[in-house]
Amino acid sequence: MKVQIEAEGGSSTAESRERLLEAAGQLMAERGTTDISLSEIAARSGVNSALVKYYFGNKAGMLMALLRRRLGQGMADLQQLLKMDTSPQDKLRIHISGMVNTYYQYPYVNRLMHELANEPSGDYGKQIAEEISLPVAKAQRAILEEGRAKGIFREVDPLVFYFMIVGACDQLFHSRHQARHVFGLEEINDDLKRRYVSELCNNLIRGISADPRAN
Amino acid sequence: MKVQIEAEGGSSTAESRERLLEAAGQLMAERGTTDISLSEIAARSGVNSALVKYYFGNKAGMLMALLRRRLGQGMADLQQLLKMDTSPQDKLRIHISGMVNTYYQYPYVNRLMHELANEPSGDYGKQIAEEISLPVAKAQRAILEEGRAKGIFREVDPLVFYFMIVGACDQLFHSRHQARHVFGLEEINDDLKRRYVSELCNNLIRGISADPRAN
Repeated sequence: MKVQIEAEGGSSTAESRERLLEAAGQLMAERGTTDISLSEIAARSGVNSALVKYYFGNKAGMLMALLRRRLGQGMADLQQLLKMDTSPQDKLRIHISGMVNTYYQYPYVNRLMHELANEPSGDYGKQIAEEISLPVAKAQRAILEEGRAKGIFREVDPLVFYFMIVGACDQLFHSRHQARHVFGLEEINDDLKRRYVSELCNNLIRGISADPRAN
Repeated sequence: MKVQIEAEGGSSTAESRERLLEAAGQLMAERGTTDISLSEIAARSGVNSALVKYYFGNKAGMLMALLRRRLGQGMADLQQLLKMDTSPQDKLRIHISGMVNTYYQYPYVNRLMHELANEPSGDYGKQIAEEISLPVAKAQRAILEEGRAKGIFREVDPLVFYFMIVGACDQLFHSRHQARHVFGLEEINDDLKRRYVSELCNNLIRGISADPRAN
């Protein structure tokens, strides 16, 4: 059965899966919404929409696979970051920069996480928490504790810090119409992204520093 | 025509409008989504769904009216706050507390703003920016400038500060499943909300202070 479907599609399983995921990601990024249909994904990818069910179970399963693809490298980088021989401040800067870069490149990922977590079918909320949110929260806690042990950071609530960082990193990209109407920005380009990361890190790191004038 | 419809509905225009808005708000808060149908709103309110078109033009118009209802008082309070004889730090605390309280009570408002802004029909993005986002950004800028003039705050980028505050205030309520799976919180109650506001304000105000140890 598998061989037959692949032969009909005219490409290998890996290629078709890849094309479906790429098409879904492109459509969400272009439209500024996660509300895309299977037939649109099929039309863009040139892959029969029946293969979504075959490869991923259903559309939500495909979007979960896309999320893993988009965030996997960042999660691996985050684990490497914890082992790096650099200051807790620099670890936070690198972490925040990585998170903003992800939202800049794939502005739909945070919305997709929320929607999949609220999806009645499947157990995506738990999967997303275990594979993504929990490792991020743990990494942040480790950096905060390292800074605290070294006398660089004061005691801060990791829960508040987590939601502050995720919310602040996401909001700019989630609200492109506000950037336009309120601040007159026609697009969010590399320059704005760099300025955002730099100022955001300054504010956040000063906010939790034992002696913020040193930063 | 108007009188006839009202007579059929068995209640005054003001009452029916109110019941429709209340029903839409309740459904979005209960479901944790803004994806509610006209027939659900009609069933909950006991008001014929045809009246949505009659009173508000369409569903998006009704949701825009709901947004104005939910945020109107906060916007008026914000203008009063600017005139208060209190420190810039306290003005920020009151502003942030008011924003978190709004999201706590009506967790759907930020999502609704984004969805209406992206709605192809109507010009909601511009209306929301002019009536809500721009006044909020202007108020924050006024507080930041007052603090800067008094030597209390350092120079900060109002754009970054705006997205930081809105994102941080919204994210906790937007991500209830993360609060549950990552931090083991079954519900966001008054205690957590107060702790969140207090820590968030400490971090934010220290982050922008000229001498953060004074706060």
